[in-house]
Amino acid sequence: MLSAENLLQAHPLSATAERGEALARAVEAALGCAAACTACADGCLSEEDPARLSRAAAAAESCAAICAATASTLLRQSAHADREGLITLLQSCTSACLRCERECREHELMHDHCRLCVEATTACVEACERLIALL
Amino acid sequence: MLSAENLLQAHPLSATAERGEALARAVEAALGCAAACTACADGCLSEEDPARLSRAAAAAESCAAICAATASTLLRQSAHADREGLITLLQSCTSACLRCERECREHELMHDHCRLCVEATTACVEACERLIALL
Amino acid sequence: MLSAENLLQAHPLSATAERGEALARAVEAALGCAAACTACADGCLSEEDPARLSRAAAAAESCAAICAATASTLLRQSAHADREGLITLLQSCTSACLRCERECREHELMHDHCRLCVEATTACVEACERLIALL
Amino acid sequence: MLSAENLLQAHPLSATAERGEALARAVEAALGCAAACTACADGCLSEEDPARLSRAAAAAESCAAICAATASTLLRQSAHADREGLITLLQSCTSACLRCERECREHELMHDHCRLCVEATTACVEACERLIALL
Repeated sequence: MLSAENLLQAHPLSATAERGEALARAVEAALGCAAACTACADGCLSEEDPARLSRAAAAAESCAAICAATASTLLRQSAHADREGLITLLQSCTSACLRCERECREHELMHDHCRLCVEATTACVEACERLIALL
Repeated sequence: MLSAENLLQAHPLSATAERGEALARAVEAALGCAAACTACADGCLSEEDPARLSRAAAAAESCAAICAATASTLLRQSAHADREGLITLLQSCTSACLRCERECREHELMHDHCRLCVEATTACVEACERLIALL
Repeated sequence: MLSAENLLQAHPLSATAERGEALARAVEAALGCAAACTACADGCLSEEDPARLSRAAAAAESCAAICAATASTLLRQSAHADREGLITLLQSCTSACLRCERECREHELMHDHCRLCVEATTACVEACERLIALL
Repeated sequence: MLSAENLLQAHPLSATAERGEALARAVEAALGCAAACTACADGCLSEEDPARLSRAAAAAESCAAICAATASTLLRQSAHADREGLITLLQSCTSACLRCERECREHELMHDHCRLCVEATTACVEACERLIALL
């Protein structure tokens, strides 16, 4: 896959150095989290006993939608002049990840898709918080 | 089109009365704004002189992505227990709308798609702020 | 909500007459279907017995993603020069709607969100097929 | 980033062997292409002379929306029973990628974001065609 760092640096308004690196990590984490959540939600619904997994599936779907919008906004560097808007979006992304992580953690020993989802949401929270600190 | 109010009331966790009505207005406003922004961005790029409209197009694309994620999250009522997350998402939606509204207002006399985009972003800001006040 | 017809006519490449009207109906049907499917999927997962509804929820989530991309592409009239691409997209949208409609029809007497989803997918299939016939 | 192969294999309905590998490549190619197109579209609009790049930006935005929906559908393995629907979606994804690749190729010597977009769309077309051949 193309690296987010290359995509961000090819942009005429590209951020530099430390912040650029944190931005690239956040893009990759948000994209990876959206993918893991989408796969996990559909995985939950395809298990033999989906009833126990319904809250995890719902949290994962919400998280996927917000992570995808976050990744897209982070890649649109013309939008970054609106610092407040970027920070609130990253905060809402963090909130959605934390909720999904809580739900999937209850099932991570039983279901690999939940374990991967916990990994992805944890990584996304860290990457968003690190980026917020640098904005 | 199906009314958002019907969709929201058919949900087992449906909100009631005043808040349910504000929620329905916010869903419709965010969906309408995502559509207006998508149409406006592509309209800007298809005009004879797209150079003057490039900032409006970029702002509209960002706004469309955030409004679509907001509408989707508002429709997923299982996600509303995370009040903080919902409020930050609505705030980031408001930010994106205000930025798009500023850019498109400069062109609303020349281009109908910008005028419709100003209307849609203004309505979305009002609906999001009203909903935030009730959460 | 802003009418799709107004949004489409404000575009410099707007289609005219019969085809423009079919395009507007397809945009509204696809947006409405994406909203109904999102609400229904989350509704299914929030019911007391989500196990029976897991296939409906999964079909609704897939359908929502494809309907949203279809609506967005229909609103971007600069993309319509690629007639083949537009037709295959409308066909994949129709496929996703038919699958979701089959799953939700089994539950429409029990759950209003499934009934609204059946209505929305049926309307979306009709609007897509009518538009395909005019492309 | 989490590998698509791991995400797909953690799903209870995971495909096996050759097809699973082609599926993983298509997911990664479509996600990477959506990201490259989003970054390129915003990059085009942020260049000093966006007028020449407006067609590339419009093609990239359409392509991003379809690639994102394609990746999401490929990750939802419960949807793959609808083989016809999956094939038409992959075909519409291929169409959108080819159109974007044509537009961005005209600017790839001048703008790195267009060059990366050409790479990403080319890779996505190949991955989609290889997957279609195995469905």
